[in-house]
Amino acid sequence: MAWTLAARAASLNPSVIREILKVTERPGIISLAGGLPSPKTFPVDAFARASATVLRRDGEAALQYAASEGHRPLREAVATLLPWEVDPDRVLITTGSQQGLDLIGKVLVDAGSRVLVETPTYLGALQAFGPQEPEFVPVACDERGVLPGELASAAGDGAGRARFLYVLPSFQNPTGRLMDDVRREEVVATAAELGLPLVEDNPYGELWYDTPTPAPLAARHPEGVLYLGSFSKVLAPGLRLGYLVAPPEVYPKLLQAKQAADLHTPGFNQRMVHEVIADGFLDRHVPTIRALYRQQKDAMLAALEREFAGLDVAWTRPQGGMFLWLRLPPGADSLELLDAAVEVGVAFVPGAAFFAGEPDPRTLRLSYVTSTVGQIDTAIARLADLVRDRGDRVGD
Amino acid sequence: MAWTLAARAASLNPSVIREILKVTERPGIISLAGGLPSPKTFPVDAFARASATVLRRDGEAALQYAASEGHRPLREAVATLLPWEVDPDRVLITTGSQQGLDLIGKVLVDAGSRVLVETPTYLGALQAFGPQEPEFVPVACDERGVLPGELASAAGDGAGRARFLYVLPSFQNPTGRLMDDVRREEVVATAAELGLPLVEDNPYGELWYDTPTPAPLAARHPEGVLYLGSFSKVLAPGLRLGYLVAPPEVYPKLLQAKQAADLHTPGFNQRMVHEVIADGFLDRHVPTIRALYRQQKDAMLAALEREFAGLDVAWTRPQGGMFLWLRLPPGADSLELLDAAVEVGVAFVPGAAFFAGEPDPRTLRLSYVTSTVGQIDTAIARLADLVRDRGDRVGD
Repeated sequence: MAWTLAARAASLNPSVIREILKVTERPGIISLAGGLPSPKTFPVDAFARASATVLRRDGEAALQYAASEGHRPLREAVATLLPWEVDPDRVLITTGSQQGLDLIGKVLVDAGSRVLVETPTYLGALQAFGPQEPEFVPVACDERGVLPGELASAAGDGAGRARFLYVLPSFQNPTGRLMDDVRREEVVATAAELGLPLVEDNPYGELWYDTPTPAPLAARHPEGVLYLGSFSKVLAPGLRLGYLVAPPEVYPKLLQAKQAADLHTPGFNQRMVHEVIADGFLDRHVPTIRALYRQQKDAMLAALEREFAGLDVAWTRPQGGMFLWLRLPPGADSLELLDAAVEVGVAFVPGAAFFAGEPDPRTLRLSYVTSTVGQIDTAIARLADLVRDRGDRVGD
Repeated sequence: MAWTLAARAASLNPSVIREILKVTERPGIISLAGGLPSPKTFPVDAFARASATVLRRDGEAALQYAASEGHRPLREAVATLLPWEVDPDRVLITTGSQQGLDLIGKVLVDAGSRVLVETPTYLGALQAFGPQEPEFVPVACDERGVLPGELASAAGDGAGRARFLYVLPSFQNPTGRLMDDVRREEVVATAAELGLPLVEDNPYGELWYDTPTPAPLAARHPEGVLYLGSFSKVLAPGLRLGYLVAPPEVYPKLLQAKQAADLHTPGFNQRMVHEVIADGFLDRHVPTIRALYRQQKDAMLAALEREFAGLDVAWTRPQGGMFLWLRLPPGADSLELLDAAVEVGVAFVPGAAFFAGEPDPRTLRLSYVTSTVGQIDTAIARLADLVRDRGDRVGD
């Protein structure tokens, strides 16, 4: 039988992370590789009550086909949660925010379209936009995120002008870095001046440790920003519930792409989440996640400072989120380190997967939220031993 | 702000059916327009028990990120349910079978690729494949479905050869027609001879009234058929659970497209459905749906025979499923009839939306599963009055 694949199928390849995660399923491996939130934070009992209520009260409606826009009360709740004035008619409920990225690719990206991304950037966005065959243009970043001065030349001009800049300003995956208030103002002002649309992905914004996250880019320029939010990190990812807030020029096409993609996000899940959050639950629940993740982050930073002292290794000090980004000494390669680390029972994600352009082979991503403090201590000590051994060999 | 849409966004337009369904929300309208299953058939109590069990027993796992392929026990259960030997490794769980169509479009359709469809065909498939900008080629059909003799010329040859024939052989949406065993054999043999892949969509196959549905095309030629199944019509659509069974040449790319599209189908929903069906529930439940829908179909056929006698109107006599297809007298136009019908409180879907090529303006689709028998009687009598009045005026 002659199956002929679409040209874009060549760009559909197994995710590096996915392959690494298979390794981490081996018994005894301490995984700092995953992008998973801690299951300790999942409000299982609240979901059990909510699902019973929804099925008892609205069972037939919850199990029937539903509107492609999403469950109206949930759209209203999302609009209320967000820290700027949002019209619920501009909220589109998605099957996780990964689907939001897929819909944005379909509606805004032609083959060859220029799409600006951070350096490094979220791998899942590269995968979601990839099938539309854009030309990814990496924009230089510092520890506060995108450098505004780089945007004009990266965006280009005329017909080849970039369709948008994809940016994850709060506790970025993979670096954990935060774009501060000043940088946000600069990026928004520069983008507005250039007429460059922004796609702002904000799954981690609520997971700040000590200081509330600065207002989203979308709050500063709602007409110029397509905003993606998610319940995956503040409630649980297994229900696959995210949302888009889209300007009126783009919303109707995103809605139609959504309808073609899966008709609508499961109505039962939308009603469950609405039931859980309706009484202000997130105001009580999210602080418990912040406290847990801060404690985990402190444990990893302490281990890094203890074990990596004098090894010429640098790392970020996240103010929120789930990830920390580490840079090995000159000449090191995190892919090689991973092979050695797996031998001693430790896994992480090499940084190379997160670069749209030339990768920095010295970088790697560590997640600190799913391991115990004991596991973190053990894993970091083992990694430091490997880096030290390697440094000694290089010095021989 | 300069939002530039992708070229394919021009093909993303509001569904005709969607617009009609808005009309049907007006109070007092009897809608024969929807494609919704009867909510009376939803096993609300079984879902309530299953959700409680899943959250109590496996809460953290059910709420965590999960495998893109789907929940392994559900994939195994799907393989067991299907009436041919299916390897669970070839089963991909999708967020409704609409998502299966979206993934197939991404993996198999380039801009300009020839895609064969029935006449008429399922509108949702046209919408799902549409963003990839195929050239749809309608294949002539009779009351038993696709005419095998038409396939060779429709499929074309060389580089322009059709990527696949999309076919819904059992109680088709919109016509309700059934491809019988002989025709299935002919279509499969012809497709195999031509090297023409088949995409078989089978949401309604279990909803037969008197005689079990003939074996799927996929059962006759597993390597040449991409099969789509769904729990929407045998359990409930609001959980958005469907599945693909794909040949090994295509499966890995579909899986990667799935991962990019929404990472995975909600794990909680997959576990709930697995819990519901694990003990043979469908064997007890589906016969109650068949019995209800047969009774509804009988009521509509009786009303049609009573009210439309002598009006030169033809209709299908479904042996399963949810729909019946009606053809008005020569010169009539179902779009005009709809305007008049809405005035008297009745809605249906004009057939034109379901044609990839030249539409037949005399056709329309009636759903008989969500209205009461009294509503069906009233609605059919009103439609007959309109057709009679119109015929009288034409005769004047």
